[in-house]
Amino acid sequence: MSALENQLSDRANALKPSAIRAMAKQAGMPGVVSFAAGAPSASQFPFEALRGATDAILSDPLRRAEALQYGASEGYLPLREFVADQLGSPEWPISPDDVLITSGSQQALEFVGKTFINEGDRVIACSPTYVGALQAFGLFEPEFVAIPLNDSGLDLAALEAELKAGAKFFYVMPDHGNPNGTMLTLAQRKAILSLARQYEIPIIEDQAYDQLQLSGERLPTLLELDRASDAAAPIVSYLGTFSKSLTPGLRVGWIITAQPIIAKLVSIKQASDLNSGMLNQMIVNDVARDIMVSHGTKLRAFYKGQRDAMLNALKAHMPDTVSWTKPKGGMFVWLTLPAGMDAGALLQTAFEQERVIFVPGASFHSDGSGVNTLRLSYSLPSTQQIADGIAGLARVIRSLSAG
Amino acid sequence: MSALENQLSDRANALKPSAIRAMAKQAGMPGVVSFAAGAPSASQFPFEALRGATDAILSDPLRRAEALQYGASEGYLPLREFVADQLGSPEWPISPDDVLITSGSQQALEFVGKTFINEGDRVIACSPTYVGALQAFGLFEPEFVAIPLNDSGLDLAALEAELKAGAKFFYVMPDHGNPNGTMLTLAQRKAILSLARQYEIPIIEDQAYDQLQLSGERLPTLLELDRASDAAAPIVSYLGTFSKSLTPGLRVGWIITAQPIIAKLVSIKQASDLNSGMLNQMIVNDVARDIMVSHGTKLRAFYKGQRDAMLNALKAHMPDTVSWTKPKGGMFVWLTLPAGMDAGALLQTAFEQERVIFVPGASFHSDGSGVNTLRLSYSLPSTQQIADGIAGLARVIRSLSAG
Repeated sequence: MSALENQLSDRANALKPSAIRAMAKQAGMPGVVSFAAGAPSASQFPFEALRGATDAILSDPLRRAEALQYGASEGYLPLREFVADQLGSPEWPISPDDVLITSGSQQALEFVGKTFINEGDRVIACSPTYVGALQAFGLFEPEFVAIPLNDSGLDLAALEAELKAGAKFFYVMPDHGNPNGTMLTLAQRKAILSLARQYEIPIIEDQAYDQLQLSGERLPTLLELDRASDAAAPIVSYLGTFSKSLTPGLRVGWIITAQPIIAKLVSIKQASDLNSGMLNQMIVNDVARDIMVSHGTKLRAFYKGQRDAMLNALKAHMPDTVSWTKPKGGMFVWLTLPAGMDAGALLQTAFEQERVIFVPGASFHSDGSGVNTLRLSYSLPSTQQIADGIAGLARVIRSLSAG
Repeated sequence: MSALENQLSDRANALKPSAIRAMAKQAGMPGVVSFAAGAPSASQFPFEALRGATDAILSDPLRRAEALQYGASEGYLPLREFVADQLGSPEWPISPDDVLITSGSQQALEFVGKTFINEGDRVIACSPTYVGALQAFGLFEPEFVAIPLNDSGLDLAALEAELKAGAKFFYVMPDHGNPNGTMLTLAQRKAILSLARQYEIPIIEDQAYDQLQLSGERLPTLLELDRASDAAAPIVSYLGTFSKSLTPGLRVGWIITAQPIIAKLVSIKQASDLNSGMLNQMIVNDVARDIMVSHGTKLRAFYKGQRDAMLNALKAHMPDTVSWTKPKGGMFVWLTLPAGMDAGALLQTAFEQERVIFVPGASFHSDGSGVNTLRLSYSLPSTQQIADGIAGLARVIRSLSAG
């Protein structure tokens, strides 16, 4: 072993290649229908608005000098103001000083890990949960505690028991979460907040899909419930991103939290990468202020069509032994195979026989469970590919069940 | 204390606000001459080339979709190829697979910390050294070991003693380093590499100022010496950036290291922020390939004028009790005050009486020494401001010496 490899940290030695990343090669092959990607559809990116805003900034002698210089670690002030205005209310305003801009919400997750986790600390997350959160928090070597989450919601009794036992925080996606698209009820949201307050365990709320509610009534976020009832001592930190609502290519997300935590995050941001690119923040600010409302409407119409195509195809083709979630938003359907069927083995066969790929569910569980589950994304394929791909996947499941 | 603050990690509790950041407010006041900023001069940014490249990408239906989507965690392949071609040679080619793109070299420093440092590990750095490196590595709670570095070079005996005692790596800026502008001799470079090999301690070489050699002969980097003599088992990892050569606003830097380390870095990048923005990488790739040679010539002429203005002013105005480095490149002069004079107190008086600011030297030392030193940047002020500001600073030093 080389001198460099000899010196790896424990965290580097523990890193494993990502299961999703490993599928990128197959996804790019001609004829493959990919239900694997977590990326939004490039067909919906507001190209002309982005191009116009960019050129306006780079043509203005004052703005271009600001856009191409180092910037404040907390982020571009007008963008922090926009985020604060969008998410606050007249009764409980959110200050721009409660907002730190990050390079996508993945960086916000990593900063949460840096800010709170000592090695061995308990961190509570749902099972399944966003694999990127497990990776980001995992860098700081916590002990993960898993709370079961399914289409009917979160296991509150299990959550209470684990909060009572103590933890650094509880990480949750209340709306259309990755991977299983669950939307928590209002009663569940209130119960989670009440329990977190009772046991004084902070909540990390991830709202990556806030612009992608496709049906049903919008419910208040945990941030809203928290700030509305006690703005003086917030217990909820909120993570957001423009990756799904505008474009992931500019890498702009944010975290909203209490100001003493923002002060720590500013030092962490400075030590981690100084600041997010100013040009990107200025483009996002200008475009979001200009088109977010109309663009959001267009976006939801597109993803509703995609989701409905997938739900219709699943209903038409899947055997009775298979169940799946019916998401009210986001990009994902979560599928449960017959007990004993291994989604990893299914992936292999589905790729070979039907040129269909997806992400096996085990990687979304901190405890390695969920072997008979998988995530289907309806973001990238056409509605025809969705219909054909789901039909093909159903054929493979039937043949494996029969064998 | 709030529930959120109760849960801070040890590393978050240890964070202190940055001394340089604290000066940003004064730097923006009218009439203030700032020798504090580490930023490159916006007057030299290649605005038209950047604007043209950006508009070309955002006008091309295929390229814009790639630019605004998620990208590979290792970075944009053509840019990795460019970096590899620039820094490799026909005798010892560097593969694009040896290169990972980061969000500025600050992120590369943080990734080095993540990759190698367990809490309490020894890390060897020069004294003084880049404060951002101390901050980035500091997140992983090492024990810092300081090797004296002055205008005549590095204390090699001290380095050998510390390498022999063991460490995770030795961090060094061989060329025009921040803060003291030292350029190590060829003999010193060879000795460092030989010692690192003997004791099997990796070298982290930071070459942020590679395009800013302003006088004298260019010397081979540690990367070149390492790869030229034993490409099979590299012991040098190399950090570079486009922040000083093109613009810091796009946040594009890189690390070159052995491929097993790159594999770890890819997982670290994915967990940290998924990938650096594709649009920014594509702009930098197109502009660097197009204008780097001619732009570098222009840039060096500008900074040479700035440096010479500062060295002339120091010679004209400073009392005999003050000494300073004569950098062959970069952006900084390092000044040593009479023994017993506190640069922090001098800063206060210089700001009040002469509206001149700089960075006191203590923050560049991991051991808190260097109280009578300070860093002067010649990047942002005009040559007239440099002349006036240095004259004013000399007046304050004389008056404090007399008192």
